[in-house]
Amino acid sequence: MIERTQVHDARYPFANGAGSDAVHRHPVYSYSVTVLESGNRRHRGVGLTFTLGDGNELVCQAANHLSQSLRGRDIEEVMAELGCWQRRTANDERYRWLGPHKGVVHLALASITNACWDLWAKQRGVPLWRLLLDLSPEEVVRTLDLSYLEDVLTEESAVELLREQWPTRGERLGILERGYPGYDTSVGWFGYDDAKLRDNCRRSVEDGFTALKLKVGSPDLYRDLRRLEIVRNAVGPDVRCMVDANQQWALPQALEFGRRSKEFDLYWIEEPTHPDDVLAHRKLAEELAPVKIAAGEHVPNRVLFKNYLQMGSLGFCQVDALRVAGVSEFITVSLLAKKFGVPVVPHVGDMGQLHQHLVLFNHVAVGHQALFLEYIPHLQEHFATPCRVEGGAYRTPQETGASCDLLNLSRLASHGAA
Amino acid sequence: MIERTQVHDARYPFANGAGSDAVHRHPVYSYSVTVLESGNRRHRGVGLTFTLGDGNELVCQAANHLSQSLRGRDIEEVMAELGCWQRRTANDERYRWLGPHKGVVHLALASITNACWDLWAKQRGVPLWRLLLDLSPEEVVRTLDLSYLEDVLTEESAVELLREQWPTRGERLGILERGYPGYDTSVGWFGYDDAKLRDNCRRSVEDGFTALKLKVGSPDLYRDLRRLEIVRNAVGPDVRCMVDANQQWALPQALEFGRRSKEFDLYWIEEPTHPDDVLAHRKLAEELAPVKIAAGEHVPNRVLFKNYLQMGSLGFCQVDALRVAGVSEFITVSLLAKKFGVPVVPHVGDMGQLHQHLVLFNHVAVGHQALFLEYIPHLQEHFATPCRVEGGAYRTPQETGASCDLLNLSRLASHGAA
Repeated sequence: MIERTQVHDARYPFANGAGSDAVHRHPVYSYSVTVLESGNRRHRGVGLTFTLGDGNELVCQAANHLSQSLRGRDIEEVMAELGCWQRRTANDERYRWLGPHKGVVHLALASITNACWDLWAKQRGVPLWRLLLDLSPEEVVRTLDLSYLEDVLTEESAVELLREQWPTRGERLGILERGYPGYDTSVGWFGYDDAKLRDNCRRSVEDGFTALKLKVGSPDLYRDLRRLEIVRNAVGPDVRCMVDANQQWALPQALEFGRRSKEFDLYWIEEPTHPDDVLAHRKLAEELAPVKIAAGEHVPNRVLFKNYLQMGSLGFCQVDALRVAGVSEFITVSLLAKKFGVPVVPHVGDMGQLHQHLVLFNHVAVGHQALFLEYIPHLQEHFATPCRVEGGAYRTPQETGASCDLLNLSRLASHGAA
Repeated sequence: MIERTQVHDARYPFANGAGSDAVHRHPVYSYSVTVLESGNRRHRGVGLTFTLGDGNELVCQAANHLSQSLRGRDIEEVMAELGCWQRRTANDERYRWLGPHKGVVHLALASITNACWDLWAKQRGVPLWRLLLDLSPEEVVRTLDLSYLEDVLTEESAVELLREQWPTRGERLGILERGYPGYDTSVGWFGYDDAKLRDNCRRSVEDGFTALKLKVGSPDLYRDLRRLEIVRNAVGPDVRCMVDANQQWALPQALEFGRRSKEFDLYWIEEPTHPDDVLAHRKLAEELAPVKIAAGEHVPNRVLFKNYLQMGSLGFCQVDALRVAGVSEFITVSLLAKKFGVPVVPHVGDMGQLHQHLVLFNHVAVGHQALFLEYIPHLQEHFATPCRVEGGAYRTPQETGASCDLLNLSRLASHGAA
């Protein structure tokens, strides 16, 4: 039984340009950390949502309030109707006005939901990916809130989609041994100088990565193009190169960059403009093909993702379980993406800790291609069981739960009480 | 000079079904109230954003934080670059992650922005509508953040749009004498019984209203249709009848209601489904024509409105200056709507106090049709100068400012300090 709920405000300032992008020059990576403690403190479910510092305390307050309804309940019972609980909670008539399904309240729902999944896996004594693969299609779908998707994905069709993949799961289990490929997102932070960028690119390829990403969106287009040339020259023609503008451009600028960067054979252009602008993304997808458009880290919910997919605006779906309502809405969006034939390459606000589990489920159970998962090593020293990336691939985690335990939680500011 | 900033948490619980809809059965109408006080307490700018109770304190905290940057500045100087200030504030690298341009932080920006406009009008000693009509097109556009609209509305084209209307303004000034028509949104709250609904409809028509609205979205479609029949029978064929589902339906249900309600000659169907679902609204617009689709009270920003308008998803644009970033983003969306030929009929989270000014500007300066403005009388006793609706029309307000002064503010919980 869940006897205690608590929410911690964890902040980790960066230095030396790490984590910097066109919009966030001095990032403070932060988590609102929901902790659900079962009786006798035998198990602690830990759930994260990501922010960039100020405002993290608002998410903590909302998570503290919304998690109260879980007290006194058994986690097995909660998970048997998690989709209904999510729906009720998101529709709380007092809080709904602040969204719906977006912003501070929805981020809080992500943190709580992720804590529920972690606690469930720990109580069953398995890693989250194992738990997910052991669930029946019906059990998975009971954890999802599919409201407002009825025109494209009902509970029945979601179950059917998972059932269709069941017979061929065995063919995809090899990923557990091989490890899930990673791509290196840390070679080209916005604040890195040219020499550091070049060195990072070379080291990354030596370390076994076959794909990497550069931050762009400079006020000076030629800085972006010069840095992109450095990257391409450093890694050669066979490594996949992506760029990420972090929403810095208006549509005309994004088109301009896309046209001028054609010679560099980009694999995708990420977050070219505002994340609510489904039509601008479609225009970019049409104009810049065969280069694909990637987005999702700021797309707040399944409804907007549905529109993105219906419109053909996304080449890669970068849903983040710390932005949408946790593991559950991540799975929902993965099912939608599968239905529309779009690969899922999550953004990792969790630094990959949680998503290393989710991509295994996506590949084996949903039938998504095992493309690659973003790799950001910057917070490894704060996690109890940091993900292991070797030879450019995530090693399959063996610890119980969702790998989201943070060290020194008790020293952080907290909301709620024992 | 702005010497003090303070944010108050004002909550007004309702009783007897007033204000109830399909989603909000027991509403607590609430405001996050930003107060900007100029030197010697000569002028107090008061700005509102609306919520439904719990969570209002989160908006207050965000508004308190974001308003700090206005301290020590002169309001004339602030307003001469308000668009830039809005852009900087919305892009604050710590807070941006919580949106962008949506949720708690964006609501806070609405509250602060509205306080700026109120203070500006009070300092100039005129009602807000007068101030707005006296500004040059260039001065208006300097108060707007048009970022992410470059593909359809630049600063130059916004100025041009206002200039085009300048020569014919005189023809539209008669509205100041006649008063702006209202429509009655309080006849058919969700919790009202049939007899009360019938009586309210008759009284509304006697009071001079020529349009009114019914809350629908019942789990039982036949309850909605029965109540709609009561309304139509009570008011006759010449009164415009609208319905509002408050997002209660999925697309298939909304289509079902639309088809079954054809005989009642609806003027619009409001918020049929999720406010992020631009494509579902377009599908409804196509399938249910000539009945129009209205939405906007939960559309958080200009970018999503741009997509709504580009897609032809809206028959009526119900932007609310207490949902988007205040008067400034309201004007931005009004300009967009004008460009796409869609009438603006604001949702009034302010109970019409602020919007009675804005619709006069929309009609005279932007050239929008003077259709009608929603009328909700429920909080009149809390405003210092409640709007006056006589013979079904808003009387043009004559007091200085934006008519948003609330009584007994000093007795409310507050954030920030003198």
